[in-house]
Amino acid sequence: MEGLVERYIVTLRCVDAPGVIHAMASALLRAQGNILEQAQFTDEATGKFSMRTRFESPLIELENVRSLLDTELSKFGPIISLRREAERRRALIMVSQQDHCLADLLYRHANGELPIDIPVIVSNHYDCQTLAHQYNIPFVHIPVTSTNKMDAERNVMSLIDEHSVDVVVLARYMQILSNDFCSAHEGRIINIHHSFLPGFKGARPYQQAYDRGVKLIGATAHFVTADLDEGPIIEQDVHRVQHNHSALDLAEIGRDVERRVLARAVRLYSEDRVLLDDQRTVIFA
Amino acid sequence: MEGLVERYIVTLRCVDAPGVIHAMASALLRAQGNILEQAQFTDEATGKFSMRTRFESPLIELENVRSLLDTELSKFGPIISLRREAERRRALIMVSQQDHCLADLLYRHANGELPIDIPVIVSNHYDCQTLAHQYNIPFVHIPVTSTNKMDAERNVMSLIDEHSVDVVVLARYMQILSNDFCSAHEGRIINIHHSFLPGFKGARPYQQAYDRGVKLIGATAHFVTADLDEGPIIEQDVHRVQHNHSALDLAEIGRDVERRVLARAVRLYSEDRVLLDDQRTVIFA
Amino acid sequence: MEGLVERYIVTLRCVDAPGVIHAMASALLRAQGNILEQAQFTDEATGKFSMRTRFESPLIELENVRSLLDTELSKFGPIISLRREAERRRALIMVSQQDHCLADLLYRHANGELPIDIPVIVSNHYDCQTLAHQYNIPFVHIPVTSTNKMDAERNVMSLIDEHSVDVVVLARYMQILSNDFCSAHEGRIINIHHSFLPGFKGARPYQQAYDRGVKLIGATAHFVTADLDEGPIIEQDVHRVQHNHSALDLAEIGRDVERRVLARAVRLYSEDRVLLDDQRTVIFA
Amino acid sequence: MEGLVERYIVTLRCVDAPGVIHAMASALLRAQGNILEQAQFTDEATGKFSMRTRFESPLIELENVRSLLDTELSKFGPIISLRREAERRRALIMVSQQDHCLADLLYRHANGELPIDIPVIVSNHYDCQTLAHQYNIPFVHIPVTSTNKMDAERNVMSLIDEHSVDVVVLARYMQILSNDFCSAHEGRIINIHHSFLPGFKGARPYQQAYDRGVKLIGATAHFVTADLDEGPIIEQDVHRVQHNHSALDLAEIGRDVERRVLARAVRLYSEDRVLLDDQRTVIFA
Repeated sequence: MEGLVERYIVTLRCVDAPGVIHAMASALLRAQGNILEQAQFTDEATGKFSMRTRFESPLIELENVRSLLDTELSKFGPIISLRREAERRRALIMVSQQDHCLADLLYRHANGELPIDIPVIVSNHYDCQTLAHQYNIPFVHIPVTSTNKMDAERNVMSLIDEHSVDVVVLARYMQILSNDFCSAHEGRIINIHHSFLPGFKGARPYQQAYDRGVKLIGATAHFVTADLDEGPIIEQDVHRVQHNHSALDLAEIGRDVERRVLARAVRLYSEDRVLLDDQRTVIFA
Repeated sequence: MEGLVERYIVTLRCVDAPGVIHAMASALLRAQGNILEQAQFTDEATGKFSMRTRFESPLIELENVRSLLDTELSKFGPIISLRREAERRRALIMVSQQDHCLADLLYRHANGELPIDIPVIVSNHYDCQTLAHQYNIPFVHIPVTSTNKMDAERNVMSLIDEHSVDVVVLARYMQILSNDFCSAHEGRIINIHHSFLPGFKGARPYQQAYDRGVKLIGATAHFVTADLDEGPIIEQDVHRVQHNHSALDLAEIGRDVERRVLARAVRLYSEDRVLLDDQRTVIFA
Repeated sequence: MEGLVERYIVTLRCVDAPGVIHAMASALLRAQGNILEQAQFTDEATGKFSMRTRFESPLIELENVRSLLDTELSKFGPIISLRREAERRRALIMVSQQDHCLADLLYRHANGELPIDIPVIVSNHYDCQTLAHQYNIPFVHIPVTSTNKMDAERNVMSLIDEHSVDVVVLARYMQILSNDFCSAHEGRIINIHHSFLPGFKGARPYQQAYDRGVKLIGATAHFVTADLDEGPIIEQDVHRVQHNHSALDLAEIGRDVERRVLARAVRLYSEDRVLLDDQRTVIFA
Repeated sequence: MEGLVERYIVTLRCVDAPGVIHAMASALLRAQGNILEQAQFTDEATGKFSMRTRFESPLIELENVRSLLDTELSKFGPIISLRREAERRRALIMVSQQDHCLADLLYRHANGELPIDIPVIVSNHYDCQTLAHQYNIPFVHIPVTSTNKMDAERNVMSLIDEHSVDVVVLARYMQILSNDFCSAHEGRIINIHHSFLPGFKGARPYQQAYDRGVKLIGATAHFVTADLDEGPIIEQDVHRVQHNHSALDLAEIGRDVERRVLARAVRLYSEDRVLLDDQRTVIFA
């Protein structure tokens, strides 16, 4: 069927070596590919090479494209991710009681601004159930107590498997995930942190920010890692505040920053624009 | 001499109580004062009241104005600062080898954008001597070694006395001042910190920022205090960065943020717009 | 009933003259008022004085407070606005097909972040009806054609009267209001403009922004006036964009800026922080 | 001489076609090139392809590299720019009386932050002569009157030729250049505009900004074109302002934004990161 094309997104990470870009270009030429977007980056500090290419090709079988990529690129020992653009990333969203990040993600999703699928929302509370149902997304209540944490995580893992989830989005989920859970999903859990990182540790961060009289309130979206309090940063932003903002005002402004920083991070992820490079991210925005 | 007026700036801090604003207004009426600017703030958390008034009055003797203020306001037990606007704050600038903050302050000063007097520049190095001389400002070299720190600080204190210095501006001065020195000049030392506070501790902050892949580089101007690493914050700002910025790039961008944050803080101070309220500042911008 | 207090917000505009602040302070002393917030501004260019005071008083009858204010301040010929803080401003929201601003206002309203009442939402389309009903706010469809514009505006005016509306918020309402309507509600209509003003005139502003390769996308919330395309500005913000953002991407980013700029403007208005000073606004943020 | 390498920057523009990236990669492989940075962009609206590659190669003769590029890429009819990174772009700076942009460029240049050569500074006034001499850069006074404009421009053109100038930087040069001059140097004149474009037309832009009560002050660095008031935009930024900033305050803040926007634009240009794409720029930042 003449003229039929499929759109693909491929990302690649490997040790930098001469010829990688050439090899990718060769593979795409053999796939009669038309490059729509391409970006690459060599980290001179680590010698790691990262690349993202969005292209269209008359090869409508993904396996045929993958095979060409493997043929040309395998000598570089790369980590390759390839998908049809139309097969969207699948996000499981976890939330506790505060709904501002969830509400924003669901609004943007419904509005066509977040090209992901959201098969299920998980919460350890019931506060956000109505919101989930307004947007016709299944809501699963998984309570967390001091004794059932492992069970709860196993339930989440089952949902991840059942729904072929690519990424877990912690949209103000107030439980700490176990190291095992984090390790098993490295680079696949996005958290929104209520602070510009490195930031105020411990409870009541906006009270701490008030006590210090900060002039900017920030938020950080980052990957969750097992061994670190704070994983690779995906996106950050700030908003200016003044001495006459109370700790409550700061919290309200903080919610505003949080929701748009998380939305941007999920958007970047949904288009495969976020590549992990050890403790850092490469963002092909 | 009809029509002759003097411009004054008064700041006041006290425990909040009904009638403070009225009492200030009464004093100014008695001084035939015309209020040009006024701002006030009650910190509901601490009960502290802060106020700044800029006014003109036909009373050209400062002591007469002060006397009226004392009469009306003494019952509130206030801390009052009163000065002629034309009698500018006097800043002693301390610097080490990096000149970006000093160069910016001196350019703005020469350009009429910083209404302060700079009677002397102090450094533990000679790198900035030429720059100081270009702007015709006396440069005093006070070396600091592992053994002469107390002597060095005494020399600085002598300069502070000799030149009736109001504020010490640490424009990338890389020596740690003693607790005694800081205590003796509380609320009178402004530092520029190479980070958005709270920030990366220890050496090579921009390398740390690079390693974490931060998306924003910031700087913080703050008062130096004895007991705290990090005193009350005066001004902060950030600039967006990307994964392809090296640690050196981050440092360069950081210098840019540092110099404009420090310049804004000194400008605010020079117009008596920065009031201390325990660990916080009230900024009447 | 000892201890019972009422919270009030008063704003005042008049020609600047010595004694205004003193007179206000006297009135508040007589009302046993405790000032919670106060801000004032003299526009040296126009000689206009603006002031906002939030205070609490044991006088629980608004008319008693008003009377004291009149007694002390009438000699300055002021425009005074006084209300109980608990009696919230009432906003009629108008919208066409795009719902991003409306959805954001309603979410914040439900979340307690916008202290206004929204008695009714008006639209010339039905697209936003479901959204209005989700938040339990009456939705009135008033179609606008080439011939019924005056009738439509009369219907809106009836709703304004019926619901004692203080302010009309144009949350992406795509009809041009008549000069008569604008004049009759001067300083009482807030619009969100899809541009950083002064901006691209005419249709398809984001296409124009794309064609010029702008690096920042902005939005402006402003009062609507009869004789001007562009009335006094209340709030503005921008977001950084790049060459690889399409005109559609710019529009999406623009929607994001629009909704938060409008929300901030409505929030400022809801707390009587926006005072008109000829073509300018005084914002006591 | 084993191990000797030369660093190059190549930029390319052509109509987008499959195989361009492959052809570039082939040329670089034949040059034993090691790609340090690469970025490319296809403008889907115009079908134009832009690319920038920074690489090192053991070929130390530029002509040999150029020859390989021509061989591989000529079929795409490209516009290619190739240079050794060490052979810096040469900028002629023009200035009138205000020195804030010039002072900033010269400081950064001396500090190693602007990898350009500045062979000469031209002014229609003498105000900046001392500044130029402080930095040991030749200063040429070319007065402009109502009658000698063409002569003045011819003198500038002679300097451009004599000093092999790549780019003319208008650092607050207050004369309008003729269409002929602009056309002859299209894409080679960078101007800093005292406004966020599109902006206030005509004289006293900061007074206009004050009169409208803008909440953000901006500046725009752009290429100068003959037929347009406003050429392709290179960089923009803004700073937040308030109602209590006078028109003079806005001008001072504006100067601050101007100087850093222009410095960024010149920095981008100096590293060949700015490519023209009709009325737009592609910025490989």
